[in-house]
Amino acid sequence: MKIPKSMQNTSYLIIALITSLLSPTLHADPLPSWNEGVNKQAIISFVERTTRADSPDYVVPAKRIATFDNDGCLWSEQPLYFQLIFIIDQIKTLAPQHPEWKNTEPFASILKGDTKKALSGGKKALMELAIATHANISTEEFDQSVSKWLATARHPKTGRPYNQMVFQPMLELLAYLRANDFKTFIVTGGGIDFVRVFAEETYGIPPEQIVGSSIKADYEIRDGKPALIKLPELNFIDDKKGKPIGIHQHIGRRPIFAAGNSDGDFQMLEYVTSGKGARFGMLVHHDDDKREWAYDRDSHIGQLARGLDEAQQRKWNIISMKKDWAKIYPAEKK
Amino acid sequence: MKIPKSMQNTSYLIIALITSLLSPTLHADPLPSWNEGVNKQAIISFVERTTRADSPDYVVPAKRIATFDNDGCLWSEQPLYFQLIFIIDQIKTLAPQHPEWKNTEPFASILKGDTKKALSGGKKALMELAIATHANISTEEFDQSVSKWLATARHPKTGRPYNQMVFQPMLELLAYLRANDFKTFIVTGGGIDFVRVFAEETYGIPPEQIVGSSIKADYEIRDGKPALIKLPELNFIDDKKGKPIGIHQHIGRRPIFAAGNSDGDFQMLEYVTSGKGARFGMLVHHDDDKREWAYDRDSHIGQLARGLDEAQQRKWNIISMKKDWAKIYPAEKK
Repeated sequence: MKIPKSMQNTSYLIIALITSLLSPTLHADPLPSWNEGVNKQAIISFVERTTRADSPDYVVPAKRIATFDNDGCLWSEQPLYFQLIFIIDQIKTLAPQHPEWKNTEPFASILKGDTKKALSGGKKALMELAIATHANISTEEFDQSVSKWLATARHPKTGRPYNQMVFQPMLELLAYLRANDFKTFIVTGGGIDFVRVFAEETYGIPPEQIVGSSIKADYEIRDGKPALIKLPELNFIDDKKGKPIGIHQHIGRRPIFAAGNSDGDFQMLEYVTSGKGARFGMLVHHDDDKREWAYDRDSHIGQLARGLDEAQQRKWNIISMKKDWAKIYPAEKK
Repeated sequence: MKIPKSMQNTSYLIIALITSLLSPTLHADPLPSWNEGVNKQAIISFVERTTRADSPDYVVPAKRIATFDNDGCLWSEQPLYFQLIFIIDQIKTLAPQHPEWKNTEPFASILKGDTKKALSGGKKALMELAIATHANISTEEFDQSVSKWLATARHPKTGRPYNQMVFQPMLELLAYLRANDFKTFIVTGGGIDFVRVFAEETYGIPPEQIVGSSIKADYEIRDGKPALIKLPELNFIDDKKGKPIGIHQHIGRRPIFAAGNSDGDFQMLEYVTSGKGARFGMLVHHDDDKREWAYDRDSHIGQLARGLDEAQQRKWNIISMKKDWAKIYPAEKK
């Protein structure tokens, strides 16, 4: 239970007593969408060991930092990363202002509906599409374009808004950690400004607790008002070894808990779980082709091979979506 | 008063009642080292207007972001930025391992005690000195070198440890804002990793709430253990228009309160105070040559000219150290 410093006076004991008598949820299951088993038990055991003042593994609240990958860890990432679907949709939305795109790749293929051909241009093509949809606009304009897309776009398979394809068990895990004074961060290979648009409402994670990939920005006065303009220049790729680097830049302290799902998260888990004291690393394994998708070693998205090979030796928990999760998505909001 | 979400149930009212009965400090002056006057009143009025639920200027807690410059705003910056004094001291400490420095500028002049000559090489010389003391070591090694310096170095004028040359009125302001659910950040032109070493203990600001200048870092496995190595390459300069850019990168949301002291903070205050709703901008004016230092328009450190010229028109508060502050530094800890 969290007691603010201002209350740690003589009233502390009385308050704690009253709260424990009145709170009906104190002994409720904090992770109702997690099936009973070693993984659920390992999470609860870790939280109890690190938060009980009399535990040898106790960690002071300020150091209870937990980092979560986003794509494939907090929400789905098939058939394409959702930010890439945003980019494709946005190219179509912006096409009337760019008649030249009809005859210029990779835009022409996107407009003809041939995503595969558009993306065959590799990183260069992807960067061109990203720049066309993310740069040369203010951060506020960008936020609005993402908000508008989230409000209207629907996933081709589930028909859900993309921000309702988040994993209910992970929402519970985030809330459980926060209830125990962990500070939860997202550390994503996706765009920091893209994820910030929905992370607070969707995950309860504020913009200042998002670490991600970014393009550079400039500050200027436009029409007499200050604006931050997103530039067509890469700033940082927050993937693989970029994740511990990004964590250092933004957080400046080694987390004690990390969750991922792909080999893009390997270095983050390695960094987090090799620190001193109690540590927790987990990988969400997409092994449920009925309720979500099943993919790992050979996937072009969210490839997971080294993580599976080394999890046991590194004492990382492999979470089976099929076995560990009673539920995948939250009840749909209409 | 801050009540965690888990406690916002039926016990809320009872707890609030008991706390208000038991807490002896509830109606105490939150800013005892601030003299009564328009500036103190403006701060208190701003906090009350933005935090009272029935106020037209009410701001939800998640958006109560306050940003503070460090050098000259939270601690002194004369006769040289304290980080520069660290660099000079560190060059002397490291000299035995670098016999070549005796004959190489700017190191040779530093070792002869001629700081002025060493710094006459401008930005290039400064960068060489910074790289020699900040790069090619792990972040942990760097932290240790700063800690060791802070524990032993003393200011030439006051004889105090540098982290005891912080401004007592600003410590009270930080605490007052936090007690009202503001999240306080440092946004410094100084090195992010340098400030992180002492900011939590000194200011109550954790590493993840520091924005600053940085060099790049790499992640590697050293002796079987992951390490973050600081590289001899500039990453970001968090000064002037770099401040709103750094705020966007790290915080991702426009603060509603900003404090600075020099024209290096101009764009931060401009950005913060031009947003919608209630805003607060303040500049600490160093006008007290008895208790601290007096400098502004013509100073080579902490130059303040445009800020003074435009403060009235922009409704920024100019804080006079001489008139507004009853006290400069906290009581010295031995």
